[in-house]
Amino acid sequence: MFESAELGHKTDKAEYEALVPTLRAQLLDAQFDLRELKQFAVVVLINGIDGAGKGETVNLLNEWMDPRHIETWAFDAPSAEEAERPFMWRFWRALPPKGKIGILFGNWYSETIHARVHRITKRAELDQRLDAINRFEAMLVREGVLLIKWWFHLSKAGQKARLKALEKNPKTRWRVTERDWKYYALYDRYRETAEHVLRHTSTGDAPWLIVDGSDERFRSLLVGRTLLEALRKRIESINKGWAPRQMAAPLTPSLDNLNLLNSLVLRQELGKKDYNELLELYQGRLALLCRSEAFRKRSLVLVFEGADAAGKGGAIRRITAALDARSFRVVPVAAPTEEERAQPYLWRFWRHVPRQGKITIFDRSWYGRVLVERVEGFCSEADWMRAYAEINDFEDQLIEAGAVVVKFWLAISDEEQLARFKAREAEPHKRFKITEEDWRNREKSAEYAQAVCDMVDRTSTENAPWTLVEADNKLYARIKVLRTVCERLEAALA
Amino acid sequence: MFESAELGHKTDKAEYEALVPTLRAQLLDAQFDLRELKQFAVVVLINGIDGAGKGETVNLLNEWMDPRHIETWAFDAPSAEEAERPFMWRFWRALPPKGKIGILFGNWYSETIHARVHRITKRAELDQRLDAINRFEAMLVREGVLLIKWWFHLSKAGQKARLKALEKNPKTRWRVTERDWKYYALYDRYRETAEHVLRHTSTGDAPWLIVDGSDERFRSLLVGRTLLEALRKRIESINKGWAPRQMAAPLTPSLDNLNLLNSLVLRQELGKKDYNELLELYQGRLALLCRSEAFRKRSLVLVFEGADAAGKGGAIRRITAALDARSFRVVPVAAPTEEERAQPYLWRFWRHVPRQGKITIFDRSWYGRVLVERVEGFCSEADWMRAYAEINDFEDQLIEAGAVVVKFWLAISDEEQLARFKAREAEPHKRFKITEEDWRNREKSAEYAQAVCDMVDRTSTENAPWTLVEADNKLYARIKVLRTVCERLEAALA
Repeated sequence: MFESAELGHKTDKAEYEALVPTLRAQLLDAQFDLRELKQFAVVVLINGIDGAGKGETVNLLNEWMDPRHIETWAFDAPSAEEAERPFMWRFWRALPPKGKIGILFGNWYSETIHARVHRITKRAELDQRLDAINRFEAMLVREGVLLIKWWFHLSKAGQKARLKALEKNPKTRWRVTERDWKYYALYDRYRETAEHVLRHTSTGDAPWLIVDGSDERFRSLLVGRTLLEALRKRIESINKGWAPRQMAAPLTPSLDNLNLLNSLVLRQELGKKDYNELLELYQGRLALLCRSEAFRKRSLVLVFEGADAAGKGGAIRRITAALDARSFRVVPVAAPTEEERAQPYLWRFWRHVPRQGKITIFDRSWYGRVLVERVEGFCSEADWMRAYAEINDFEDQLIEAGAVVVKFWLAISDEEQLARFKAREAEPHKRFKITEEDWRNREKSAEYAQAVCDMVDRTSTENAPWTLVEADNKLYARIKVLRTVCERLEAALA
Repeated sequence: MFESAELGHKTDKAEYEALVPTLRAQLLDAQFDLRELKQFAVVVLINGIDGAGKGETVNLLNEWMDPRHIETWAFDAPSAEEAERPFMWRFWRALPPKGKIGILFGNWYSETIHARVHRITKRAELDQRLDAINRFEAMLVREGVLLIKWWFHLSKAGQKARLKALEKNPKTRWRVTERDWKYYALYDRYRETAEHVLRHTSTGDAPWLIVDGSDERFRSLLVGRTLLEALRKRIESINKGWAPRQMAAPLTPSLDNLNLLNSLVLRQELGKKDYNELLELYQGRLALLCRSEAFRKRSLVLVFEGADAAGKGGAIRRITAALDARSFRVVPVAAPTEEERAQPYLWRFWRHVPRQGKITIFDRSWYGRVLVERVEGFCSEADWMRAYAEINDFEDQLIEAGAVVVKFWLAISDEEQLARFKAREAEPHKRFKITEEDWRNREKSAEYAQAVCDMVDRTSTENAPWTLVEADNKLYARIKVLRTVCERLEAALA
């Protein structure tokens, strides 16, 4: 969930100063249109790790735009008057009218997360509250509110560095209190709770947007750009006379060229001799794990995604070689059949959910919805936006029923892919594997990369994390896949 | 919630036999169109009290329509194979493809309710499951499924009579087992759980439809008509080229002339002398209750709805006469102001939520959404359909924060209303109270009556029940209102 926000995005000063004047002018324009139209209100939620720039961002938005039409609310512990009314009462009072922007800082999420981190609420109580929040936000969206939910993130090391830096500077020393360090000590628990909360409240209509808070300039540009795009998208749809409702803020735009995929070193060293040794080692481990007593009460779901010719089939064969043929099924996923198209899109995957003691390997999967269907426009934006939450729901149910879910994205460089395509064309028995479509897909590699990054950010969680596999060297990729499966199984069966 | 289903609806044999042939032909036509279009699937959920005709209805639908295109599923305890997979797995397998009707008997609700009635699950766990069900059903609806959720209801006495009747007949004796009587003993708990479940899963897109199960002919006609209307509505919208999604089944149509309102005896006897005595009695009780120590930690929300000239103002004045002027506020609700129109529709009511120890009296209320706004077309069908769940949510929050919520519908006959209108016109100082609009509203009294009945069925619950007040005699109405407020407060403060 926080993968992309921990890559260390940065914007240098010159670039920042070149971009800001235009952005400010555009934001002011958009704000003016919002006011003139008076067709919808904007609710901005500011949440996240302390020290990740929440306060600074709120100040900046007020500075960049016309503050007379921004209502900023900071909520702390409820007053006596507030405590005597329902939990949501003070937030209802803070809702901005149509034409205005309301920035809610310390909102319905802050208290909810705080109570769980400090174990004031139980997990089931937390879930009841999240459910109430989802219903409330769904109502806002259906009433036409443009809801933008920002989570400002810092890694643990990042938060520590930030607090130290504030302490060191005499001008900001006062901002760091003992409470801040006490909270820092709870970082892991806070992060875990936040992940749960974000996952359960990130819906197609009101998705969370994660902001890397480590670099002030990057963070400011990202927030400004996202707000601008969200406003413009809604305003245009109104000007075109479209129904303005239930249109989500766009996902976080890409500002720099840094993303999860291109921060990988795709060619990793591994020679044939080492490969053979490791292959034997991990296949042996896997064979024992899947035949163990403990596995009889569990099941295994493997998901393979990756660009064409990334080596999914080869990796799968190295796994199945270690398994009893009666225990697994490989499900190759292509375009849906007529029977499958007559059903909700997850139906064809539910069919293959393994029973206890069994293994299903998906060669491509339900993630097609947010990859090929998104990029090629086979489904509407609303459809793929809601799919993230539906997929998380689906995987949660698998895990709750005892399945271990392991998901791989096999990443190869454009050059390596080209080389493999050419090699396939040269080999008569592999030529059938390359089609016109494969060549066309290469032209959309930037869109696919964006879709992959959004997918990982929105569906990688503690229980069902994505493993990105550097796959320019096939041998390395196969071993990483095998090792990951073994480690995940060992952890689950321990 | 079950109010309308306990009125004892009946259809006589002659009427039934006259209506059925056409209905069957229409159902077959609609089923044919469904199959030809292949644009959506129909999922019918059959739930409710044992003995209320669930099985008979399923058989009937198969008899009336072409059973080759109906897939009927009856789920009992999960098999070993099913138990080893996620809870929803077996239901996913049962989903009908586009163009077909799937009847699911013993579905995701049956086990959920059963586990709670037998205290296998805790309340919070039940709520987690209901939340998962809501997400699942929202997904189905967004995938284009027409979801019809029927609850077959019997009163406690009705269930007993039904079981006895089955036992008496040698042909059906075998159907009544010891288990049935054991379950009958749990009727109250079952009803309470069912009310909670239905309330939390009745959404604007997939509302529950309650069927009075006591009379076989009435029940059969009602089910057939509802299914027909739902199919026709969706098919027409597809033929018109409208987006077919998120269109709910219509609420239960009215078959006979029996409803909650016209089953009331509107003129009740109460003379002036008795009135004065009772007035003093209840005003005294109310005064003490609202000044009691216990009330300081609670609050009171009174809702008055009713036709024009039903006597809301008079009833409210008899209450406020007993109260300390510093403790209450009367909120008259008229058309929303510009400020209020710029906000989600519940916003203007949230503003007036009382703090502890205080009282807010709403002279008309948030129910305007499902009354005047529905009937006059001031909001879309989707808007008022979702409002029932949103209103229930709102009142739940009030109650959770300690408020006692008491809701009154003041019912008067058309004749009495006419007499009062004329009397007002004759009195110079009351003439301003009658406008052109009031006369217009009288012409829509059938639509208003339907809206009132739907409102009561969908928002009357154990915690926040509606009280229907027979108001042709003002004196009687005022005393009933006062007495109800006193009794509800006494129960809450005890």
